[in-house]
Amino acid sequence: MAERIRSVIRTQHAPVIRSHACIVSRKEGEGPMGACFDRVEEDPYFGEKTWEQAESRMQADTLQLALEKAQLAPSFLDCIVAGDLINQCTSSTFALRSLNVPFLGVYGACSTMAESLLTASLLVDGGAFRNAAAVTSSHFSTAERQFRFPLSYGGQRTPTSQWTCTASGAVVVSAEGEGARIRGGCIGRIVDYGITDANDMGSAMAPAAADTIFRYLQDTRTVPEDYDMIVTGDLGNIGSSLLLELLHAQGVDISARHHDCGAMMFNEHSQDTHAGGSGCGCAASLLCGHFLPLLERGEIRRILFAATGALLSPMTTQQGESVPGISHLLEIGGNYVD
Amino acid sequence: MAERIRSVIRTQHAPVIRSHACIVSRKEGEGPMGACFDRVEEDPYFGEKTWEQAESRMQADTLQLALEKAQLAPSFLDCIVAGDLINQCTSSTFALRSLNVPFLGVYGACSTMAESLLTASLLVDGGAFRNAAAVTSSHFSTAERQFRFPLSYGGQRTPTSQWTCTASGAVVVSAEGEGARIRGGCIGRIVDYGITDANDMGSAMAPAAADTIFRYLQDTRTVPEDYDMIVTGDLGNIGSSLLLELLHAQGVDISARHHDCGAMMFNEHSQDTHAGGSGCGCAASLLCGHFLPLLERGEIRRILFAATGALLSPMTTQQGESVPGISHLLEIGGNYVD
Repeated sequence: MAERIRSVIRTQHAPVIRSHACIVSRKEGEGPMGACFDRVEEDPYFGEKTWEQAESRMQADTLQLALEKAQLAPSFLDCIVAGDLINQCTSSTFALRSLNVPFLGVYGACSTMAESLLTASLLVDGGAFRNAAAVTSSHFSTAERQFRFPLSYGGQRTPTSQWTCTASGAVVVSAEGEGARIRGGCIGRIVDYGITDANDMGSAMAPAAADTIFRYLQDTRTVPEDYDMIVTGDLGNIGSSLLLELLHAQGVDISARHHDCGAMMFNEHSQDTHAGGSGCGCAASLLCGHFLPLLERGEIRRILFAATGALLSPMTTQQGESVPGISHLLEIGGNYVD
Repeated sequence: MAERIRSVIRTQHAPVIRSHACIVSRKEGEGPMGACFDRVEEDPYFGEKTWEQAESRMQADTLQLALEKAQLAPSFLDCIVAGDLINQCTSSTFALRSLNVPFLGVYGACSTMAESLLTASLLVDGGAFRNAAAVTSSHFSTAERQFRFPLSYGGQRTPTSQWTCTASGAVVVSAEGEGARIRGGCIGRIVDYGITDANDMGSAMAPAAADTIFRYLQDTRTVPEDYDMIVTGDLGNIGSSLLLELLHAQGVDISARHHDCGAMMFNEHSQDTHAGGSGCGCAASLLCGHFLPLLERGEIRRILFAATGALLSPMTTQQGESVPGISHLLEIGGNYVD
């Protein structure tokens, strides 16, 4: 049985990441991380007729690729845990409806990769599933028109805004096999510091990341130096500075270990992306394309992966609400026994 | 460790439903089940300024009541698993943000009570949590204006349409204690029979309920007569007939055991609700107000609870897509040892 120490859940059997895949679009492929992705699709429609169908196609292809890499059929999966940013999570449900695999829909905004992977891992660790997949995606054009403006409106972007990545990640987690291993995790709390600028998601999410990372370090009695990397999802440049500041005020310095997927994804100067990348697919694609391979090759041994989400909707902003954030965390280690 | 038999998950420790509560609004209180709810609120705004805030208030009050009944503080909970119908699940996140409790957001449309309770139960059974809550809600006025028309438009309702219940349910599930027990469950698959009428959710969801119930009976080698009741979420009158028909075609007759929360909630003639009730809160409030008390009082010993959801959005309908359904199932027994 998994062990629980206050905020922290330690897995008993350290479920294995048996396979993973990531697909992105052209802009992500042109960024500094472009070489790490499994596929860079030039057509932003992914061969479909609408942006929403494009996102579903990308997500379906990503899971398919993760299964193919390990020569597995969809029927190998006891469950898929998936979600996305789009209203009623239809990018995921329409992507996966033809697979005939049990499905748990989750909503964690841009924290979805961490939420789905942690949920899948804990259910595998507890014996409910032998094999499960965690999947998510985001698409610049579906997110822009739903959360901000139709693309054709040509709205001006504020300096604190982030660029929603067109990207998807899929992870197959199993009770047995070879690969990086889920050592434990921490379910995020909803944290709201009263940020009301819906174009400054980094600032809204940073307090949630600080809360989760601080609780995990405290309850495991570890320090940042115990991890090779402490990875956050999509705080971007502004949110990342704030995270370091918030943790510093609590006596924790993660600056030498911190990597933020949103800050890594684009070249902010040449790609005009302002405060960085964002979206469920941002952290998902870099987890699968960059961080998991580093663990698999033994170049690093242990990371914390804390994706972050902003739990707003256009309607809550219109009603004058502030923006609550959340951050779920996984500790992922290499394929070794402690 | 939980045992898995094909589609079915059997819990190892049979987590206990330690407390539960339900709150509804006036129309639900005036229906045939009106006497079973913990609270019937006359003010559809629940004292708030917007419909969305009203739904959040109702959901927060429902969880609070479930905790109070068992004299528990929110800090007793290791996690809350919650979701709702509203874009980006903000009814739940804004309801629960002040509690400071780890939060897993789920999206299963009207199947959310089953999805959240099954997820919470399996995570308790596997040792990730000692105590968790499963919570959901729906509100007629938030759902109408988001999925259909603004109320003030006065749109005509079709005969197959259902009435979204203003209702909420909350369940506290624990590794220890006294109460009804979660014996097992089945994660739903996404099932799409090509229904394109967004005003006929019962027909869209019935095939998913049939799929889940059939798989559960088959894989547990049980028959409908092994259960006192087989409860579905919100198929309504039309979807219920279709469910019986679909199962009958597979050689399974549940007609003597079947109860549908959507068909039970209103008096279709005097309350003008057409095909019945719907919404996450429909199955949630009747589970907490009616079915769990029957189990606790020993009047029945064993039920299947299969809530159903339609995984559409207004945008997928506009893009000509059909309506996929899903149904998650729990087997809930009394407080006895087999």
